[in-house]
This record gives sequence, structure tokens and C-alpha cells, in this order.
Amino acid sequence: MNQEQLNAMRHSLAHITAQAVQRLWPEARFGVGPVVENGFYYDIDVPGVKISEDDFAKIEAEMRKVIEENFSFERSEKQVDEAIHWAENAKQVYKVELLNDLKRAGTTVAKDLDASEMGTIAEGDAAVENVSFYTDGDFTDLCRGPHAESTGKVGVFKLMRVAGAYWRGKETNPQMQRLYGVAFASQQELDTHLKMLEEAKARDHRKLGKELDLFTFSELVGPGLPLWTPRGTILRNKLDAFVQTLRDEVGFEQVAIPHITKKDLYERSGHWAKFSDELFKSQSREGHEFALKPMNCPHHTQIYASQPRSYRDLPIRYRETTTCYRDEQSGELNGLSRVRAFNQDDAHIFCRASQVEHEALAIWDIIDKFYGGLGFGELKVRFSTHDPDNMAAYLGEEAKWQEVESQLLNVVKHRVGDAFMPGIGEAAFYGPKIDFMAKDALGRTWQVATIQLDFNQPENFDLTCTDEQGNPERIVMVHCAIMGSLERFLSIYIEHSAGWFPFWAAPEQIRILTINDTVKDYVDEITSILSEIVLMQPLKYNEVRFTTDDRNESLGKKIRAATEMKIPVQLIVGPKDKEARQVSLRTRSGEEKVNLDALADYLRGL
Amino acid sequence: MNQEQLNAMRHSLAHITAQAVQRLWPEARFGVGPVVENGFYYDIDVPGVKISEDDFAKIEAEMRKVIEENFSFERSEKQVDEAIHWAENAKQVYKVELLNDLKRAGTTVAKDLDASEMGTIAEGDAAVENVSFYTDGDFTDLCRGPHAESTGKVGVFKLMRVAGAYWRGKETNPQMQRLYGVAFASQQELDTHLKMLEEAKARDHRKLGKELDLFTFSELVGPGLPLWTPRGTILRNKLDAFVQTLRDEVGFEQVAIPHITKKDLYERSGHWAKFSDELFKSQSREGHEFALKPMNCPHHTQIYASQPRSYRDLPIRYRETTTCYRDEQSGELNGLSRVRAFNQDDAHIFCRASQVEHEALAIWDIIDKFYGGLGFGELKVRFSTHDPDNMAAYLGEEAKWQEVESQLLNVVKHRVGDAFMPGIGEAAFYGPKIDFMAKDALGRTWQVATIQLDFNQPENFDLTCTDEQGNPERIVMVHCAIMGSLERFLSIYIEHSAGWFPFWAAPEQIRILTINDTVKDYVDEITSILSEIVLMQPLKYNEVRFTTDDRNESLGKKIRAATEMKIPVQLIVGPKDKEARQVSLRTRSGEEKVNLDALADYLRGL
Repeated sequence: MNQEQLNAMRHSLAHITAQAVQRLWPEARFGVGPVVENGFYYDIDVPGVKISEDDFAKIEAEMRKVIEENFSFERSEKQVDEAIHWAENAKQVYKVELLNDLKRAGTTVAKDLDASEMGTIAEGDAAVENVSFYTDGDFTDLCRGPHAESTGKVGVFKLMRVAGAYWRGKETNPQMQRLYGVAFASQQELDTHLKMLEEAKARDHRKLGKELDLFTFSELVGPGLPLWTPRGTILRNKLDAFVQTLRDEVGFEQVAIPHITKKDLYERSGHWAKFSDELFKSQSREGHEFALKPMNCPHHTQIYASQPRSYRDLPIRYRETTTCYRDEQSGELNGLSRVRAFNQDDAHIFCRASQVEHEALAIWDIIDKFYGGLGFGELKVRFSTHDPDNMAAYLGEEAKWQEVESQLLNVVKHRVGDAFMPGIGEAAFYGPKIDFMAKDALGRTWQVATIQLDFNQPENFDLTCTDEQGNPERIVMVHCAIMGSLERFLSIYIEHSAGWFPFWAAPEQIRILTINDTVKDYVDEITSILSEIVLMQPLKYNEVRFTTDDRNESLGKKIRAATEMKIPVQLIVGPKDKEARQVSLRTRSGEEKVNLDALADYLRGL
Repeated sequence: MNQEQLNAMRHSLAHITAQAVQRLWPEARFGVGPVVENGFYYDIDVPGVKISEDDFAKIEAEMRKVIEENFSFERSEKQVDEAIHWAENAKQVYKVELLNDLKRAGTTVAKDLDASEMGTIAEGDAAVENVSFYTDGDFTDLCRGPHAESTGKVGVFKLMRVAGAYWRGKETNPQMQRLYGVAFASQQELDTHLKMLEEAKARDHRKLGKELDLFTFSELVGPGLPLWTPRGTILRNKLDAFVQTLRDEVGFEQVAIPHITKKDLYERSGHWAKFSDELFKSQSREGHEFALKPMNCPHHTQIYASQPRSYRDLPIRYRETTTCYRDEQSGELNGLSRVRAFNQDDAHIFCRASQVEHEALAIWDIIDKFYGGLGFGELKVRFSTHDPDNMAAYLGEEAKWQEVESQLLNVVKHRVGDAFMPGIGEAAFYGPKIDFMAKDALGRTWQVATIQLDFNQPENFDLTCTDEQGNPERIVMVHCAIMGSLERFLSIYIEHSAGWFPFWAAPEQIRILTINDTVKDYVDEITSILSEIVLMQPLKYNEVRFTTDDRNESLGKKIRAATEMKIPVQLIVGPKDKEARQVSLRTRSGEEKVNLDALADYLRGL
């Protein structure tokens, strides 16, 4: 079954859901019912009734009846006024509103709706004259289609949840109930999906973040502003150190900038206009306007610009992991995935146009090493370019865009040939970019790293070097975040790893569990060995972080506690181990006896 | 000569300055003329005349005449109306204003003036009835005194500079000219001071910051917001790593917080009221009020409060080097000494009251090791307590203040006996503190580290641990910054060291200077040795940072360049060195030949 057929099937199930609801609550009024990832929803308003998950069995049973009845989906057309008349008769007030809007202004109004909602109504560039309907048995709905052949051919489904949703997404509109379902062609696919959801729930980074004591939120500090505990800070630092180690090998240098700036910087860069709504702004007591930085590039240009630069000095590569701020709306905030304060492992290369390809390839290597090192499979690549039909969204002339895009395209072709997705209109406002997509352990795809070419900021800030002849030469900037937002990356990585971080990155790497108090001196001997160990890969000089659990508790309880905290290595020490000068070394893959003399080598090999 | 006599002498010179000016420009009108550190000034307004440094010779010559004339200083008193009459006659409009204010409201108005200005006028708790005057020869001035015996007994002096100063420090008042002079009991002391000033000028951190390429400011980003270059960032990081290494040895753990918070946090902590003017505030698009953090303690309390804590977990010690923001007035900004964005090497200990002394002593050790390691002599100690007459400036009850101050006093006595300065009224608003003062290479004293006890924030945020009986116990916080503001510390340290940073902290530690191109392969051999060296003190695993200057330039030019950048070690390599398998190792203390085999050991010993 191809995607189109799958969509038709899922959309048909949206109709069948409404149909079942109508049979159960004939006074039900319907909004829109589009296809979404893995399924569908329908927005429903039953006056005086609040549908709950308790009603799902009843609704699903009715849906199954409709499916058994195997009605065919019949398309028909009505003139728009006739359609309005039909909807008024049916007391479908939301459909009446939609139809009136369509009649009045066509696309202009339709664009007010989100893309998914468009699926249920007729499309057109101007006011609409005719609209289409689909009928299956006792149910008719305004709908663009297409549909499955009949209600019997809609695969397998499951209603998942019901949630409040404002009509057309506006808080001032009435609140409807959105019924979500998932649907697949086969039972096996559905089962796999449900299992994945269950696993995803167990791995939810908000849940694990709490259980593993990685980060916290405070109502007093505010939503979207994570506070990092000692354990979470170690994890962040280690991941960041991995990126920075890879960067430093190819000549990046750390810099440090403040988190605010006068408006002037962003007026010059163009961010003031582009970012305006999302900027946290502040007026100083002297009346000057400041903003919290939503990104770092304009600040970094000012370090470059603080000295005259020669072509001999280039490329100059600045790196800095620093916090950016965006005034996201409360409703959009979600764990670490979407926050108001996020730390970027940002870097900017200032180079000659002739050096771009070499630099971009070096970054690509870093991206491969980092994501490979964390157990993500091969990354997918999207080449994000400007949209020629929407040049107003970008800085600079189109001819220049084409020129620099062809330069970046060389890099992409060099690395992956034609194995990339085109992303027309996905460029940053200042230049084209290469986006990298990682697939996690649950098969979900996330956009992660980027390499962005920027020929506009060097113009805005008049960034040059002197060339071989002593003349000023306009330089180019390359933006390259590896994790991007550490918070967002961690929301992905915590779920990808289920909190089982690699040995070198685990906040607590080793926990010694004593069987009883007779081993105290032997534990001292072990801790003095652990204190001496220095790991070299992938970070240089990474010392071992360990604790001892010598509470007066059962070994079973200690093992459970250490396993709940997902400590990669447990060293179990009892009187027999002491006698044999060994430890029971417990990892996720099992338990083995390790001789004390071999312990350091064993751990260095992890 | 004691300080009182020195002050009387300097104040007499202020009068003599005014006297000389009056002889040269009889229409001159005088403001106030107090004693300041190392000297004095007088605010003067000569209608239509702008006194410049070109006039100093003339003024000094006239001052010397007054000194030779050896007038005695005669004190007299006038009833205040009589005094006003005298001042009106003399057309001394500023004195008229001062006298009227004194007559009207006594101390209340006098407090408007800054402390130094108070020195020139009569003091009193209520409106003033009588005021005192001093007369020496042809000059009489409203003045509280005391003075030197006569104009012949005023030591040696030098006029230093003249600068605009608003009358009574208010921008809306007329601008006067402030004539500054320095004065000492002996020529030798004056010479020493002038030499110190010259040296201070050469060491000015703003100048060295530029020359050594450590930091920069951008007009677009705004004043008071330093941007740190790669070299400056290394220096900062190394100094910070020194502090954090010392901290980690005694159990501190790093945490990470955002730079903003909702108003709610600071309302709870009391900072909203105390810091209000200096807060950068921001209203989100949803209308919530946020502020940039001017300090870190309230955020850190929220990490502590994110979990239930047992007495077994305490002390919990958080450390974090993070940027704070204060909306300082433009006129107050100065290089790195006073900035709007400063990085604090902050730390907070959450502990039981019974643990305070032990924790405070451990911090004291860190402070000693850090400042000792950077070549500052023994630190002076101030014990800063509440002002019982001004309890409105503090949170909490006075009885509690007395209790915790006696606890902190134990720590001070334990370490320095009675060798500390009392600082009544110098406490933070939340608790008493121990302040440490360092003397720099030029003999100037700076307040640096602090240890602060805080019993109020634990109340505000209801911070507890469960005690041995399972009951909640109120805990105590200890605040302890070692460098404090890294920016301010660096302004001191750059000048203290004159930019000659210790080997382990220098941004570029070693520069290889080639005599000609025949040594290329030998340089490769040296660089491979340098790449292998790891320094262990005072930082663990500090790798060596080096560059090679193989430009086609003379050795002299290369040495000058490296010396200007204050690179601690220059390795000069010529054909003879290559042949002898040695290098010429050049430091500030001289040049010596070092065998290649001994190079690593030599550097490790630095």
C-alpha cells in the first residue's frame, strides 16, 4: 500500500469515526477530520456531552459495524449555496461556517486553516463555486477526498485519545473534542506501532529526566527554563566535550559572548525584523533597547571584526556552547524538546569563498563521528535551498543564492552522490544549508545537525580579509551546530538510549555495592584503583566517576537502586570476592568475575 | 605622619589650590574641596574660562608662593545667616547654596552630598546654627577643618588632572571643573606614587586587553558587554578551572541554570525589591514579567528544592560559572572593572547549621590556595556584619543575625585571631560575610573573594532536610565566590601580572621562533615533543599550547613580537641548535640552552 492509499484509508476512517459518533449521538456537529502521522482525527462537538476514553469501546464497536456493512464511498458535487442549505438543514453549524468562508473568499480564507484541515474541504484559488461530498451509507460529509473504495477496506485501527481543541485553533472559538485514532494496513503494523508507543512512553525524556535526576523545572523560575542538576550537568558536559574535542582537532577556538545585545546589532544583521516576536526584549533604565540573543552569529562577527584580518589568518573558526533565548508560547513548550532557554553547541567559520568546501567536509566528518559514536545509524541528508517564488523571505539577490547553493551542492554530491532530499524553501534566511536527519532506536526521524552557508552576514557587517595583493576581500561564514540545541538533542538522545548512556558519558559510571561490612578495607582498595584510572576515548583524560553503596540494605535492593539509575557498571563486593581478590562486575549484558589486577584494563576497554 | 595629619595636609592643599586659582582668576567661584585617596580636589567654576593642564604650571607656581608665605590657618565661626551674607558678598554662589541648605535642613540635606563633600561643611543632626571658617592669609573658606598648622607645612604635591564635574553630582546642575592633586609628606613618597601611576598606566587592563588580544567591545553589542576572543577565553577558562579543581577536591558539583527567571522567583527571594533598578527586565509576549539574573542563589535553591533531602545528603555543594546581568549606568562602566554582563564563579553550599564552620574553613583554604597560587600576598580579612541602626536594609530578625554572626566570627577567629577589620553595615541583605582583600603588585588593595552566610533564603524558599528523627530541619546556605566577577578579577589580575600570566594559564604558552628555513624538520620534531607533554599542576591534564613563527623575518623581529604578546616561553631554533639537538629557551629571566631530551621535563617544572 503506497502513502496515497494509506492516507485515503486513514481519511476514510475519520469519516467512519464521525459516522459512528453520529449514530450514537445524532445531535453531534462535526468540524474537520484530516489525516495525521500514523492515523487521523475528527473534531466533534456533541452539545452537553463530554466524550471520554470510556466511550471508545462503544464508538469502536459502532465503527466496526460500519466497516462490516462495507458501504462504498460515493462522490457527489453541490453548488456552494446548495451545500450551505444542506448543512443548515443538517444543523452542521461548523460546516456552514466553512462553506460560507469558501464561498466568500476561496483560498484566502482556506489558508487560515492549517494544512491538515485543508484536506476536508474543496480547494481553489478564488471563491469556490462547487464543492464535493462523499457519502457512505447513512453518512454524508463535505470532503475533497479521495477515499478507500468502501468502508470494508480501511485496514485496522484503534482510537487513541480525546482532547479539547478550539474550533479552527482559535482560543476565542468554541472548544470541540478531537478524537484521535491510529490506523495501518495490517494488524502486525498496528501492533508494532502500539508497542513502539508503549516503549516511547517508558523512554519519555521528561519521565527519565526525573527518574535519573537529570534536570528539573521550577514554577518560580518559569516554564521552558530547565535547571540542570549535577547529574544532568555531567551528561551535558561530556556530550559537549565530545563535540568540542572533535572540533578542536580541526582548529576551532573557543570564544565567549554575553547573552544580550543592543538592538543595533540585530538591526544590522536582519534578525530584529525576522525574529521580532520571539525575542525577549529589555529596555535599560537609560532607555536603550536590548534583546536576549536567539542565536550567536551576530555576536561572533564582532569578535572577527575586532581586528584586521589577513587571508593568512583564515579560516578563523570560533566555537562556543552558550545559551540562547526565544520567547516561545507556553502552549508550545514541551519538556526539553521545546524550551525558552536552550544551549547551542554553536560554531562559526570565517573563511574565503574558496575554502567553503574544505570546511564543510571537515564539519561533515565531525557530524558523522559524533552521531556514529552515539549509536545513531547513517544520517539522512537534506539540501535546503531558497524558494525562488518567495524571495521576500530571504536576504540577498537570487543570483548570489544560486551561486552559493551550487557550491554547497558540490559538497553534498561529493559525500552522498544523489542520496539526499531536496528541501526547496527550507534554507535559512541568510543562506542555504545541509540538514542531517537521525533515526532513533524507535525508528523515529529527527532533524539534528546542520551546516549553513552565509554570504549575507559578511555583507551586513562588512567582514573582509586582505587578499594576497593587499586588497579587501569579502569573506563567507559557515554556521555549524552539531547537537544544535543541547536540550532538544538530549530529549532525543535520552529516549534513543532509554537513559543507558555510554560509559564515558554516564553521570555516575560505576557503583560499588557491598554485600556486608566486612569488605570495608577491600572497598578502599578498589576505590583507590578507580581513582587512578583515566579513560582516553572518546574524551581525553576522562576520570572515572564512582560512588559506593554501603548502606545496611540487601544486595537485591542495592542492585535494583543502581539499575533504576541506569549505572552502566555495578561492582558487587562480598567477603568471597575479597578473599579471591576479585569483583563481580555487573553490566546490562550480564555479570562476570573480574580479577582486581585486570579491573583497570577492563574499564579502559569499555 | 598619621592618616589624620595626612588628611589635614591634603585638605589644606585643597584650600591652597583654590587660593591660587582665586589669585589668578579673582572671579572664580568655589564648590567643595575634599580629601581623596592620595590627594585632594577642588570643584571650581571660573566664568568664561576653561582651566586646562596648560595652566597647571601657573597654578602650581602660585600655590608654591602661598606655601612660602607660610600663612597660619585660622579658625573662626559665624552665625549661619551671617555666613550667607558673607558668601553673597563674595559672590560665592555655590557656598550660598550650601549654607542655605545647611540652615534649612541640616543633616537631611547634607546626606545628599557624598561623604567626601561632607568634609568641607559643618556637620550636625539638625538645622545648623553656626558654621566654621578657615582663613590663611588672603583666602577664607567655609570649612569644618582640621587643617595643617600653616601653609608652609603641607608636604609635597602635584596637580594631576582637571575634569568636568556637575555641581553636587547632578546632571541638571551647572558643570564645574574639578582640579585633582596628589600630596605626600615627602618627595620620595610622591615620586614612588607617581612611578606607581606610570606603571599602572602601562598595565592598564583595557590597554593590555587590546594588545594581548584578550577581549573586545562592540558598539553594536553595546557598552559594558565584553566579547572574549580565543586568547582571553583560554585565560578565563584556565583561571576558572583552577578554582573549580580546588572546589571539586572538597565535593562541589557543577549545575547549570538559565539566565532568566519569572519575577516570582525574585519576589520570593526579596531581590525584586532590593535589586529593582539594576535588573534587566523583559515582558514576554504573553505578558509575563521576566528578569535577567543579577545573581544565582535563587535559581540554585530551586535545584536543591527539586528533591526531598535527608541530613545524610548534606552538605550539598553546587558550583557554576555563569553570567549575571546588571543594568549599570553608562557613566559607571569601566573596562572590565564595571560591566553589565559579568561571569561569576559562584557556588552555594546547602548544609545544616552545625556544618557551617567546617564548610567556611574549607572555602577559606580554597581562597588561600587560589590567591597564593597567583602571587598575591596574604589577604586581609573583613568581617562584614549588619548595622543595628539600619535593620530596614536587611531580611530577618536582629536576634537571628546576632546568632549567625557569632558562628561566622568563630571561623574568623579560628583563622586569623583578631587580625581582621570589622565591617559594621557591610553585610549582604540576607546575611553576614567574610570579605577578603588582596594587595596587588602596585600596592593597591582590592576586595576579592567572599564567604557569605545566608539564613534568609532557606526561610524564603522553605529549604529543609529531614533530620535523624525524620523531622524537617531548616538548613543554611553559604555563598562563596572565589574570583567573584571574573571580569572584575581579570581587570585586577591583568594589571597585577602586567599581562605576564603564569605558564599554565597563558593563552599561548610557547612560541617556536625559527632562525631560518633549514630547521623545518627539526621544528617538526620539537612540536611532536610539545604535543605529548601534559602538565599536571595546578590543573590536571593541561596540554601545552604552542605556535611556530617561521615567517621570513629577522629573529629580532620575531622575539619582539613574542615578547610584546608576553609569551612565557620562546624556543629559538637555528641550524646550530639543530646540530646540537638543543633549543635556546628564552623566558623573562633570561635565555639558556636546553637539550631536546630535557625539554619536556623543563616545561613540566615551570
